[in-house]
Amino acid sequence: MKVLVTGGAGFLGRRLARRLLARGKLHDASGHERPIGRLVLADVVRAPDFGDARVRVEAGDIADPAFLAHVVDADTSSIFHLAAVVSGQAEADFDLGMRVNLDASRRLLETCRQLGHVPKVVFTSSVAVYGGMLPDVVRDSTALNPQSSYGTQKAVAELLLNDYSRRGFVDGRALRLPTISIRPGKPNKAASSFASGILREPLNGQAAVCPVSDGLRLWLSSPRQAVESLIAGHELPGASLGLSRSINLPGLSVTVGEMLAALARVAGAEVAARVSFQRDTAVENIVASWPGAWDDSRARALGLSGDPDFDSVIRAYIEDDLPARG
Amino acid sequence: MKVLVTGGAGFLGRRLARRLLARGKLHDASGHERPIGRLVLADVVRAPDFGDARVRVEAGDIADPAFLAHVVDADTSSIFHLAAVVSGQAEADFDLGMRVNLDASRRLLETCRQLGHVPKVVFTSSVAVYGGMLPDVVRDSTALNPQSSYGTQKAVAELLLNDYSRRGFVDGRALRLPTISIRPGKPNKAASSFASGILREPLNGQAAVCPVSDGLRLWLSSPRQAVESLIAGHELPGASLGLSRSINLPGLSVTVGEMLAALARVAGAEVAARVSFQRDTAVENIVASWPGAWDDSRARALGLSGDPDFDSVIRAYIEDDLPARG
Repeated sequence: MKVLVTGGAGFLGRRLARRLLARGKLHDASGHERPIGRLVLADVVRAPDFGDARVRVEAGDIADPAFLAHVVDADTSSIFHLAAVVSGQAEADFDLGMRVNLDASRRLLETCRQLGHVPKVVFTSSVAVYGGMLPDVVRDSTALNPQSSYGTQKAVAELLLNDYSRRGFVDGRALRLPTISIRPGKPNKAASSFASGILREPLNGQAAVCPVSDGLRLWLSSPRQAVESLIAGHELPGASLGLSRSINLPGLSVTVGEMLAALARVAGAEVAARVSFQRDTAVENIVASWPGAWDDSRARALGLSGDPDFDSVIRAYIEDDLPARG
Repeated sequence: MKVLVTGGAGFLGRRLARRLLARGKLHDASGHERPIGRLVLADVVRAPDFGDARVRVEAGDIADPAFLAHVVDADTSSIFHLAAVVSGQAEADFDLGMRVNLDASRRLLETCRQLGHVPKVVFTSSVAVYGGMLPDVVRDSTALNPQSSYGTQKAVAELLLNDYSRRGFVDGRALRLPTISIRPGKPNKAASSFASGILREPLNGQAAVCPVSDGLRLWLSSPRQAVESLIAGHELPGASLGLSRSINLPGLSVTVGEMLAALARVAGAEVAARVSFQRDTAVENIVASWPGAWDDSRARALGLSGDPDFDSVIRAYIEDDLPARG
């Protein structure tokens, strides 16, 4: 089988690719487990090929129908659609967000519809689809009322994925990821970038500025767990999903203060002391509109799981990602 | 001020136009009451001009950007966007539904964004945005899980309208209409067409076939009340709408059996006896996925109202619409 990962050069895309290559097989839409003969990694920049003959790297614009037609073909059985413009950038550049987060997602679905067979499509959605007057714990039955353009675009793509699945054009699943923490590397334009930075920078010996209050509650997942959840979500039989293809993935509900307390426990008080606070209302307005927790019982009943606690999230970063120092 | 009604040749568009001409004025997005100097009625076919010099009739394709640019201009202060492909047709012809219900709505919003001022946009949404595992009474906080392509397209347009409003591109309000009963004229391709036909045909001396069980519960509004609600929804100040521009309009919750009992009360048992039952599962699957009632307390708190009871809905049809016979 041929598997496509869009956003395959990104941080999550590269990790997912590595896990798929190690795993070597997936269940297709008919429920048959098949070896991954080809893994196509598509992105605006070239993804690594991991020195693996199964990998084909394609650089191009995911919103360009010709590029989509090039990377999705009659052999494509599964697509992990990770390509997206992040929240802060979609808020700053409305047209870019609409083009990549909405138009490209729709064209991808449309390309699949024309294939002549039904591929599995895993769409990565987000906490940002929720917003407005939220209950303390968000449930699957809670209305989507996004308060950002990014959240709107993700919510629209979810609705389309559901209808394309209902009509039998694709076998889709929209997996709502918690905010990912701790992302390695540099800060990005996501409004939630600080949720990694306030841990990553201190662990790397650097100062960090937190733009929100320490009481702000976030719904989090480690990168390691997020990749496992994407694969587990792919493996679910379509028939198990009932009348909604959108799933709130398991996560951890922690405040910024609790994250920094965990940092002090795992790495020492002097590391946690590298964080200072300076409010940024543009960031806070977006992030505070997201739920601090959701009821993940549906996902858990489907067999998906989450990180055990935030201390282990910090330890996973130290094991997987902390740059060698000295 | 210039006012545009899309779908202006349709049954609801023509009634709305008549009411707007009689009313003669509306509040613009700045809260100023201004006379309607021009009423543009746009549709695929030519709307009537009502012999009124304020009316301009435009025939064209609402999904064509050039036509949109022609009917929306620098003087357009308010838009009632009624143009749509109905539910049964959007299910039968996926591409047509996407083009008219989604693409045209998005292009209309985009045209408004380029105007240089902020018009009011009233978007007519529907019970069909709801579906799946619904509670007995749907609330504003209930998730949209449409089980038809029509409902999906309406839900997507609502999300976009909300984001365009949040960003200040338009002053939008998405008014979710109950199923309209009793529509005059002939059956159409809406899955809910029977909800008018089982009353209209008997009142006109004809037999009617009901494709659903008499226990099916519908959420209804008379055409007269629907037009009043669209205007009342337009008149609300944008600031009164808080974090969601989508409003569940007031309606009546009645079963098919209760509708026919009301028909017997108002018009006689021999009239109600003209209805026979023959199940059509394609129709029933769509209509049964819609809510039979929703909590309309938000709309009522905003000052909107509904029909008092179904007997009065039948009497309104007899007064407004029953063709002269004999």
